[in-house]
Amino acid sequence: MTTDTGMILVEEALERVLADIRPLTPTRVPLADANGLVLADDVRSAISIPPLPNSAMDGYAVRAEDVAAAAQSSPVVLPVIGEIAAGSPPEPAVTPGTVVRIMTGAPVPPGADTIVRFEDTDEENRRATGQPLDAITIYASPRVGTSVRAAGEDVQAGQVVLAKGMELTPARLGVLASVGMANVPVYPRPVVAILASGNEIAAPGDELGVGHIYDINTYTVQGLVQQMGAIARPLGIARDTEESVRQHVEQSREADFLITSAGASVGYYDLVKEILQSLGDVRVWAVRMRPGKPVVFGILRGTPDEPWGRDVPHLGLPGNPVSAMVVFHMLARPALRKMMGHQTWDSPSLTAVLDDPIENEDGRRVYARAHVYRGDEGRMHARLSGPQGSNILTAMARANGLAICPEGVKRLEAGDETRVELLGETGISGSASVDE
Amino acid sequence: MTTDTGMILVEEALERVLADIRPLTPTRVPLADANGLVLADDVRSAISIPPLPNSAMDGYAVRAEDVAAAAQSSPVVLPVIGEIAAGSPPEPAVTPGTVVRIMTGAPVPPGADTIVRFEDTDEENRRATGQPLDAITIYASPRVGTSVRAAGEDVQAGQVVLAKGMELTPARLGVLASVGMANVPVYPRPVVAILASGNEIAAPGDELGVGHIYDINTYTVQGLVQQMGAIARPLGIARDTEESVRQHVEQSREADFLITSAGASVGYYDLVKEILQSLGDVRVWAVRMRPGKPVVFGILRGTPDEPWGRDVPHLGLPGNPVSAMVVFHMLARPALRKMMGHQTWDSPSLTAVLDDPIENEDGRRVYARAHVYRGDEGRMHARLSGPQGSNILTAMARANGLAICPEGVKRLEAGDETRVELLGETGISGSASVDE
Repeated sequence: MTTDTGMILVEEALERVLADIRPLTPTRVPLADANGLVLADDVRSAISIPPLPNSAMDGYAVRAEDVAAAAQSSPVVLPVIGEIAAGSPPEPAVTPGTVVRIMTGAPVPPGADTIVRFEDTDEENRRATGQPLDAITIYASPRVGTSVRAAGEDVQAGQVVLAKGMELTPARLGVLASVGMANVPVYPRPVVAILASGNEIAAPGDELGVGHIYDINTYTVQGLVQQMGAIARPLGIARDTEESVRQHVEQSREADFLITSAGASVGYYDLVKEILQSLGDVRVWAVRMRPGKPVVFGILRGTPDEPWGRDVPHLGLPGNPVSAMVVFHMLARPALRKMMGHQTWDSPSLTAVLDDPIENEDGRRVYARAHVYRGDEGRMHARLSGPQGSNILTAMARANGLAICPEGVKRLEAGDETRVELLGETGISGSASVDE
Repeated sequence: MTTDTGMILVEEALERVLADIRPLTPTRVPLADANGLVLADDVRSAISIPPLPNSAMDGYAVRAEDVAAAAQSSPVVLPVIGEIAAGSPPEPAVTPGTVVRIMTGAPVPPGADTIVRFEDTDEENRRATGQPLDAITIYASPRVGTSVRAAGEDVQAGQVVLAKGMELTPARLGVLASVGMANVPVYPRPVVAILASGNEIAAPGDELGVGHIYDINTYTVQGLVQQMGAIARPLGIARDTEESVRQHVEQSREADFLITSAGASVGYYDLVKEILQSLGDVRVWAVRMRPGKPVVFGILRGTPDEPWGRDVPHLGLPGNPVSAMVVFHMLARPALRKMMGHQTWDSPSLTAVLDDPIENEDGRRVYARAHVYRGDEGRMHARLSGPQGSNILTAMARANGLAICPEGVKRLEAGDETRVELLGETGISGSASVDE
């Protein structure tokens, strides 16, 4: 809903953005490239793990009944008819009154039902004294099945080992490897084209003209995109001419998403909106948030007779670096997560005690840059990380979270509790590690 | 110290590993490649930001005294002698009795000390009614300096904007861009060679021989290495022959760190230790932890007359996939963080209420695979994520943390509080987002 101020709530803006975003078309990628991606299908195992019963110990594969009488006081001596290493076939079979030497992980041979570990034999003594290992003395009578891992103990053939929608963590890559999958069905990494614009914007390393500023948003957005496991494709800086902007925008045609930012210039000095309009839809919203009020969202329309022939959503960030990062966090991050097949896009958040007040003059939702940490008393705290002007990036660079002052609340006091949305993975990890 | 069991504590093993690990030699990388790296030097800004006083609003640059009398009831009309866009030089100068039209972000011209925003003029009315903009009517008398951003408001020339040892987050990349740095001094990403070995190990996608198993550790370790922002270089699977192992180990010479794992085979079927011994130091420790007791650590010695000529530390992980991941978490992760220039390597951790008991038969430190979540009552909980056998990876795949039962504690009960070390960034984010 639109608010009485004519501005829309962050949630409304997000809903409108997500309505135009679809998960990318699933593909198969090599296991080694799948880290952090989301499964596009259930994965069933073609095999059982372990595939055969195997030994949990270095020892001797026996028939439990053959050693039932064995004890320290009444050892049993049995002939050793063979040896099985991990990776060897399960042979020879154990016939009554015989044993087979077996290593951890090796398949248990037919006939055997139990493993007697080295420690319960005279293995060590025989090796030490140079006696032959063609027979072994057994001092214990383990129960049937001792130290035998059943086939399929970890995974049954045909079982779904990982479900569609799961993010592939290192352990899950291991599960896929364990069932022999070389390629996995996933949602691909979105390619995000990043376009800066403005005559006053210079690339870092270049000479800075009078009144000019360096391009910041290309680098912050690139970092945010990479942090999500998506692929950043910077398009450089478009100048304030129709030709330059068109030329740069066209380069985004093969991307999955276009993120623009308007440098410091605004109003009719900014051509970008106009040109995006000519190539598709553009909607301009006043979002009831601070920083980051003005937001542009739309679709570059693909046409069948063009090589690309598909639609590319685009998000226009405010020129101010801090506003751009906050709008990315609220709108671009969820959109990219949806493209990547994630089922959720809430920001990680927690409740913290404010160390400083937050002012809110104009009834928007304030996202105050804050440093979240665990206080000595064990509660989470949020300390404002510096001046809150949207042109001041250094406070953002010290922040690991955004402390929220809700719409219509004029002021939060030090000591009040509020919700803090966390910026990136370093945030809570860092503070949680203060624990103990 | 060594414990009465002959085993060493995890902390002791970590101390021994870190004693042989040095931060990598700092280098300069392009800003676009520096995401997540650690600064190897303080960064001073060569410029002030903003470099010149600039306008915080779209409006008119004036001399405050010229509009001191202006009010709704007594407007002041002044000639407009020019216009300055963001990125334009600050001219013309404002002479007494004149104003210059100015856009947000544009440099304030000499002579002007204050900005009158459009809303306090008849700008809009003139545009609507097609009147010329060669003069403007002003209805307000803002205080001197209103809407003028001072030069250096964000950054002063010469100021240290980021300090040595800081991890480069997206916002910090933005800070470096804002001061024009195209290359940044950082500790490079370690190249981690990953070697699997064992005759029974098959690569996913290959045919699985009788009693053979697929290579898991290469993929879990690769994922863990990538998660840290380091570079994984899998060397493939060495067979249990001296030639094969030597050949594979030699490939690790250009890496910064070598991680081996012994498949499921153990004891004298495993050549790797022997060959590493012949190329440098190897120490074998029984670490007082479960899973993950056996650990191999050493140094491949470089010799001046060899092309590489430098030492490469190596860590030998247990063959069991779960043990390998836990040992990576406890020893490899801190080692790689130190190589990357981080000042801390504690695992992110928190205190949680156990939903399940943890058994501890043999007095080691137990790391139980657990799922951490925020309970309805607001406390963090840890629920064991499945069977805890070190051969069972599926429980690891469901875990986002390792719940700790300390050495010598025989059993923790459901309801007890304990420390949980978090696995990767997805862990706490997922649970923290449950908040509110």
